[in-house]
Amino acid sequence: MAAIQEQEGNGVNVGQLFDTIEQIKQNPDLARFQFRARNKWVAGTRNRVTVQDFYGALMEDSSRVPMEFDIDEPPVLCGKNLGANPVEYLLAALSGCLTTSIVAHAAARGIVIRGIQSRYEGDIDLRGFLGISEEVPVGYQEIRMFFTIDADLSGDEKRELIEMGKKYSPVYNTIRNPTAVRVELDAGTA
Amino acid sequence: MAAIQEQEGNGVNVGQLFDTIEQIKQNPDLARFQFRARNKWVAGTRNRVTVQDFYGALMEDSSRVPMEFDIDEPPVLCGKNLGANPVEYLLAALSGCLTTSIVAHAAARGIVIRGIQSRYEGDIDLRGFLGISEEVPVGYQEIRMFFTIDADLSGDEKRELIEMGKKYSPVYNTIRNPTAVRVELDAGTA
Repeated sequence: MAAIQEQEGNGVNVGQLFDTIEQIKQNPDLARFQFRARNKWVAGTRNRVTVQDFYGALMEDSSRVPMEFDIDEPPVLCGKNLGANPVEYLLAALSGCLTTSIVAHAAARGIVIRGIQSRYEGDIDLRGFLGISEEVPVGYQEIRMFFTIDADLSGDEKRELIEMGKKYSPVYNTIRNPTAVRVELDAGTA
Repeated sequence: MAAIQEQEGNGVNVGQLFDTIEQIKQNPDLARFQFRARNKWVAGTRNRVTVQDFYGALMEDSSRVPMEFDIDEPPVLCGKNLGANPVEYLLAALSGCLTTSIVAHAAARGIVIRGIQSRYEGDIDLRGFLGISEEVPVGYQEIRMFFTIDADLSGDEKRELIEMGKKYSPVYNTIRNPTAVRVELDAGTA
């Protein structure tokens, strides 16, 4: 998509990033991506996800080695601890997206970051999932994120960085705003 | 939380599930869970998530071995393919949650499922993330899910199962509805 240049900020190839932005301004279709996952139920609360191919920058990419993720529940939730559970994967997704959004947008502005650590807490009342109460939300009631940023910045500047991360993070915005999710039976299986 | 019984449906311990529901009806605080994740930035678009402890059923659980997840981007997005990316982890979370919700609620109703496979597609326009356009959503524009269910059920009955999964899936409902996400700097780091 862009000639690889060696100008790096926070480990982000800023030259490539700016080239990409310029090319997308010329041809917005370059920005259309489709990401994918496949899931196969194993047994009980256990299932396995495979991530490999995606579409983006006007082409299919199947060059990655398939990445597999085991999902399960702890025994208290009828599982066998054979993987993190789905709502924990959601926190993982959120954490990765906020971190990358902060790092990339800081790099684009020439802000040097030495380290970022963050922790996430999500409250959930399982009476929703279990169908015991229609009044409690089925999803997370609230998610809290706590950041530790190592950089030569004031507290207010760090808070601004985090706001930038929130503004530009796809996962944050998918969770924060209502997102359309369509479902159907795969052809031939009805 | 519940005496382990051997009555299994779809690999779900239905006896434990029903015991849990009865206990929660007596004491709703048993249903309050808090899940957690920690993230450490590595470099560029690469970071690492750790999932281990959680709170639920009135106690802290740190008995699990820490589970680590590498997050990165493909080269076209300035990464080195050292892990799935955050929006792919989001699809993984969604897939695991829908699958478990369908399997558990089917088991509770005595519906036998032999297999479930599903695939997920999410459309995203990276002009949002890159700050090129304020008009396109930053998050997923749409997520589509396609299910293949192996069970002695009609197409309509399979669609009903999927609707049940959507109704009770915490990740689906976190994505489908606006969810509160609060953020702050960790104490002492401002």
